Amino acid sequence: MDALNAVSASGTTTLGGTGEWRPDATSALPLHAQISDYFIGKIRSGAWPPGMRLAPQRELCRQLGVNRSTLVTALGQLTAMGLIEGKRGGGTRVVTPSAERDGSGAIRESTGFGGQVRAGNWNDYVEEGIHYPNLPTIQAINRLEYARGLIRLGTGEPAPELLPGQVMQEILAGLSREPLLPLSYEEPLGSLELRTALSNKLSAAGIHTSPASILITSGALQGLQLIAMGLLPRGAAVLLEKPSYLYSIHAFQSAGVKFNGLPMDERGLMTDSVAQEAYRTKASMLYTIPTFHNPTGILMDEERRNALMATTGALGLPILEDGAYQELWLDTPPPPPLKALDHEGRVLHLGTLSKAASPGLRIGWIVGPEAVVARLADIKMQSDYGASSLSQLAAARWLSGGYHEAHANVLRQKLRMRREAVLEILQAHFSELATWNIPAGGFYIWLSLRQPLPLRKLFKAALQSGLLLNTGDLYDRGDNRHLRLSYAYASITELETGLSILAGIIRNLQRHP
Amino acid sequence: MDALNAVSASGTTTLGGTGEWRPDATSALPLHAQISDYFIGKIRSGAWPPGMRLAPQRELCRQLGVNRSTLVTALGQLTAMGLIEGKRGGGTRVVTPSAERDGSGAIRESTGFGGQVRAGNWNDYVEEGIHYPNLPTIQAINRLEYARGLIRLGTGEPAPELLPGQVMQEILAGLSREPLLPLSYEEPLGSLELRTALSNKLSAAGIHTSPASILITSGALQGLQLIAMGLLPRGAAVLLEKPSYLYSIHAFQSAGVKFNGLPMDERGLMTDSVAQEAYRTKASMLYTIPTFHNPTGILMDEERRNALMATTGALGLPILEDGAYQELWLDTPPPPPLKALDHEGRVLHLGTLSKAASPGLRIGWIVGPEAVVARLADIKMQSDYGASSLSQLAAARWLSGGYHEAHANVLRQKLRMRREAVLEILQAHFSELATWNIPAGGFYIWLSLRQPLPLRKLFKAALQSGLLLNTGDLYDRGDNRHLRLSYAYASITELETGLSILAGIIRNLQRHP
Repeated sequence: MDALNAVSASGTTTLGGTGEWRPDATSALPLHAQISDYFIGKIRSGAWPPGMRLAPQRELCRQLGVNRSTLVTALGQLTAMGLIEGKRGGGTRVVTPSAERDGSGAIRESTGFGGQVRAGNWNDYVEEGIHYPNLPTIQAINRLEYARGLIRLGTGEPAPELLPGQVMQEILAGLSREPLLPLSYEEPLGSLELRTALSNKLSAAGIHTSPASILITSGALQGLQLIAMGLLPRGAAVLLEKPSYLYSIHAFQSAGVKFNGLPMDERGLMTDSVAQEAYRTKASMLYTIPTFHNPTGILMDEERRNALMATTGALGLPILEDGAYQELWLDTPPPPPLKALDHEGRVLHLGTLSKAASPGLRIGWIVGPEAVVARLADIKMQSDYGASSLSQLAAARWLSGGYHEAHANVLRQKLRMRREAVLEILQAHFSELATWNIPAGGFYIWLSLRQPLPLRKLFKAALQSGLLLNTGDLYDRGDNRHLRLSYAYASITELETGLSILAGIIRNLQRHP
Repeated sequence: MDALNAVSASGTTTLGGTGEWRPDATSALPLHAQISDYFIGKIRSGAWPPGMRLAPQRELCRQLGVNRSTLVTALGQLTAMGLIEGKRGGGTRVVTPSAERDGSGAIRESTGFGGQVRAGNWNDYVEEGIHYPNLPTIQAINRLEYARGLIRLGTGEPAPELLPGQVMQEILAGLSREPLLPLSYEEPLGSLELRTALSNKLSAAGIHTSPASILITSGALQGLQLIAMGLLPRGAAVLLEKPSYLYSIHAFQSAGVKFNGLPMDERGLMTDSVAQEAYRTKASMLYTIPTFHNPTGILMDEERRNALMATTGALGLPILEDGAYQELWLDTPPPPPLKALDHEGRVLHLGTLSKAASPGLRIGWIVGPEAVVARLADIKMQSDYGASSLSQLAAARWLSGGYHEAHANVLRQKLRMRREAVLEILQAHFSELATWNIPAGGFYIWLSLRQPLPLRKLFKAALQSGLLLNTGDLYDRGDNRHLRLSYAYASITELETGLSILAGIIRNLQRHP
């Protein structure tokens, strides 16, 4: 229930919701006094600065778990103290300190950038920056993934019980006995020990590369951010699959890059329009997730890979290959990655430990020409001065100790079982409502509803019923009939319950859209 | 020696230097064959893509440790194989594959963004991105800090022997016994356990804040990057001390922000010109390092802090306070941070574990109004999906276990000894050459040369003698008479040797500038 309140209370910015805190009914201090004390602390510390609007009273009552009269008493006290005031047009806001008022008692208003210096505090800057905010739905998902009691039907990470907790304990125990822990900064490309281990791992996937061609990043996501900021000019155009994970983040758009989505079929990105679209849009690069595509789960077959390399080779069009899921094959190993077919430095390859081993380690990598990874390393040094040395060391031991391959085998087996279970559940509950693919690897099933639906409404209705969804519009703004389902996170019992509830919600929405 | 080669071989991009590798003189395979094999691997894997220029022959000989005739034999073989070719105007480059040539045998040239699709590989993009590269000197420093044998006279991190290796081993041992290691993603603001521990730590410094007002970042540097991208519009103006650490990084400039440096005296930033400059430049914020300023070591006194808060309060000018060094006082605790004087959410406060505990953990924080840290957390989620869970957990245990305060006491004592030693060395070698301040905390002494000198030339001459310098022009582009000395990194013996050599180099440059 808290989770639902949190989502309804918030747009893109906090408006003085109380978050986790609630007054203590067993305390000797009356509830209204606890509330006013709490609000005074927030206001006097600047956490709720002058001018900030509080959430509506009904919302505050829900979050605090008190009735209206208790809240009104508390707010009355704060008003009497001159800390908050009612605002025309409804709402309550934090008062600007009296020193800030002019002679007439009017509050000085922010004058913006046109005239003089702004009269304001940091809250006035929340919508100023050049980096786009996440989509509201993604923001809600990012918050709600830490709320208890929700069934997460589309989450793109392995369930905690699929992660190698015990082995990581052993690795930490080993590190705790090492006399020289790496507590200092690492070199710009990242730990040589980790890059050497990765060079061996990549070699097994057909990518022959030396440590000098590998940059360690904080997850593959940071790789995308560095490439967006470091290699593409403002206004550059990018070709990519549509739908794509890349539409759900703003790394490229915030750098002024334009997207041009290309269609896919069951064999992957359709290559016949690549040349024409590359010319038309003057594309700078093509982004693809050829292996167990996010969100569709599609595997690009070998023939299509060769065709894509040939077409883009003739065009001189560089490729950014996102290989986040490539080792998570469930039936047979996939064809070699595009990077294995590249002898010209035309493919940048992204990888990560987040999907198979540990999201929390935040370890990813970029493989590319030496000068390119050096450029990206330079930006990484300016962004965060490198990834955690502790994470890098743990990751190096994880790889060089042979744990990774052993764990991947076990994980594949568990994911296979989960995939089968979800396919059966879908068969039982969704045959009339939707169609779906059978993914050969990765985490996702791309559910195609037989009838279009208002997906925002579906998201909210599902949330009311305790389900967290990844709707298709996150991956293609115009989509109104897809859901990304993940068999990697929720338990099979949760998936059974959740999908059965979801089928009911969809039926209901079809009747009353 | 390798270090010197690396620096002379590189401008801002790698040009096919061989880095660490050298042929093995004890191998049965002739040196020239080893070299050509190595080059073939680099070229065929795309690490050295078509069109890339190799470093000059003299440079390659130095890096490979071979004589000219050996290199020429190897290059001849590669030329015969059609892998490299001489270029008009000197230099050798990697050949574009024959499929890429037109009928005349001419190599297709990159056409840029004007006309059609670029004929190229990723190397062509190295200078395209919107993020500025680091200054060449900073790039060199970043690389050379990992080269052996150099004395680092200005490094801004504690020496490895000042870091708490043994306690961290104990913390890891403790973590290795915990059944539930955090291998998954953390919530957007960062681990609640760590934010709670930080809230207690900050409280001791006079900053009373709840975990909801704290964002965990990958070091304070990432905090700067997030603020630059997330809160400031393109074209915004920032007031700051001159010189300043902020001039040495490009987080703000890459976001289109303009700097306006203000003068300092021995009591810190001079506040009398703040109002005028804020109006003139329509400043969006003021950045300051009030406590043990980087690079000058200056401590802003209490009166100046009050004046700054009053002036900026009347202007409604938000402040970004960088508190990276504030706990590293050596004589008496400093006045309360600006954030402790802020009741309006007008100060964002940055902190870090990098200066006192462990640079490699990459843990920093931003304290500010809840809506502001939520906005920055959203961008962080888009940048790298949060800091390493392992680092966050280790940091939380480090703080909540009381280790931090105990370690800081020991560190202060060691830094005090180092400061005294360096002051004695300066007295012995630099009395005629320079003046300097006696820092009350932090890492730095700001050495003012009595005569201006060409600082680029000084940097190179020092490097030739095995000294790595942080010259004043990194912190103020127009500076030609300062050096940032650090007593935190090099050993006292190294400082003695290094500073005595440096005095000789400066004397020599004064005679032959």
